[in-house]
Amino acid sequence: MKFCSHCAHPVDWRVPAGDTLPRHVCANCDTVHYVNPKLVVGAIVEYNERVLLCRRAIEPRLGFWTLPAGFMENGESTAEGAARETLEEACAHIEVSELFTLIDVPHINQVHLIFRARLIGSEYAAGDESLEVALVAEHEIPWDELAFRTNSLALRHYFDDRRAGRFGFHRCTLGPAPQPVDG
Amino acid sequence: MKFCSHCAHPVDWRVPAGDTLPRHVCANCDTVHYVNPKLVVGAIVEYNERVLLCRRAIEPRLGFWTLPAGFMENGESTAEGAARETLEEACAHIEVSELFTLIDVPHINQVHLIFRARLIGSEYAAGDESLEVALVAEHEIPWDELAFRTNSLALRHYFDDRRAGRFGFHRCTLGPAPQPVDG
Ligand SMILES: [Zn+2]
Ligand SMILES: [Zn+2]
Repeated sequence: MKFCSHCAHPVDWRVPAGDTLPRHVCANCDTVHYVNPKLVVGAIVEYNERVLLCRRAIEPRLGFWTLPAGFMENGESTAEGAARETLEEACAHIEVSELFTLIDVPHINQVHLIFRARLIGSEYAAGDESLEVALVAEHEIPWDELAFRTNSLALRHYFDDRRAGRFGFHRCTLGPAPQPVDG
Repeated sequence: MKFCSHCAHPVDWRVPAGDTLPRHVCANCDTVHYVNPKLVVGAIVEYNERVLLCRRAIEPRLGFWTLPAGFMENGESTAEGAARETLEEACAHIEVSELFTLIDVPHINQVHLIFRARLIGSEYAAGDESLEVALVAEHEIPWDELAFRTNSLALRHYFDDRRAGRFGFHRCTLGPAPQPVDG
């Protein structure tokens, strides 16, 4: 952020009066421009013991598989956001049930909420952001081709809980991905 | 938002290519300026059957009582945010335990996460944003002087669950407050 979005004046980076952290502050109109973490909302969509996965047609992670999920929009609830993303990416209508995982990803300023959900009817298809969409059984999950660690974490909890016969709620934190180490 | 925060050019309000909703878009540098819901994180801090409330020294709702809570900051987890807000507003160190409520407030583009927590030690005091801080028993809760409906909702669930001997997780949605109707 270089300029004030209200008056186009260059912004400063300083601690505003009464605050504890530096912010982008406009010296012309006094606006403080806060930047806060974003919510990503998605769903584990269940149908006959299978779950819905989408192969990404867009970056990042083009070609990799993901749960339907995306940035929450203004004016919707978290569950409505998960249903909207599923409709957009998998052309599928769902009934959202319980919140299943909350995953903090502080190094990229995101919080991921993944709900359990049920496919309504049996129709799905690739939306604009997907190359293909599939209902897959546990043994068919492409663990090495999942796009995001938040997805693998949620899916591992999901299958563990299903085997245990009881779905809980899981709160976890993901740090930066381990980097490959040379020699 | 009137101007691009990257290049100071006036922004347009239109649906970007490949998107479904109108956004603030810069015709000069092509930046799409997304605006997303904000997370509010807070805690019901328990100590000897009492909970910690702060009387607000700032607007909105100056003079009314609130749970320690505020906007989540970049770089922290949801639980760390709840602990930070409690330290700032009530000068109290807490151990955060379970997520207790997720309250969607879509008409103001907020999601409130309230955790259960335990006071570490027994010290607390009014922070800069509080007029006073108190540990109150259920029968002392100033229900008519609570600052926010998210707080009353969380506290009602909390005391209900405590009476029932089992704390659950509660997901709820709050719409706009009912307006007083003239005769
Ligand atoms: Zn300005
Ligand atoms: Zn621009």
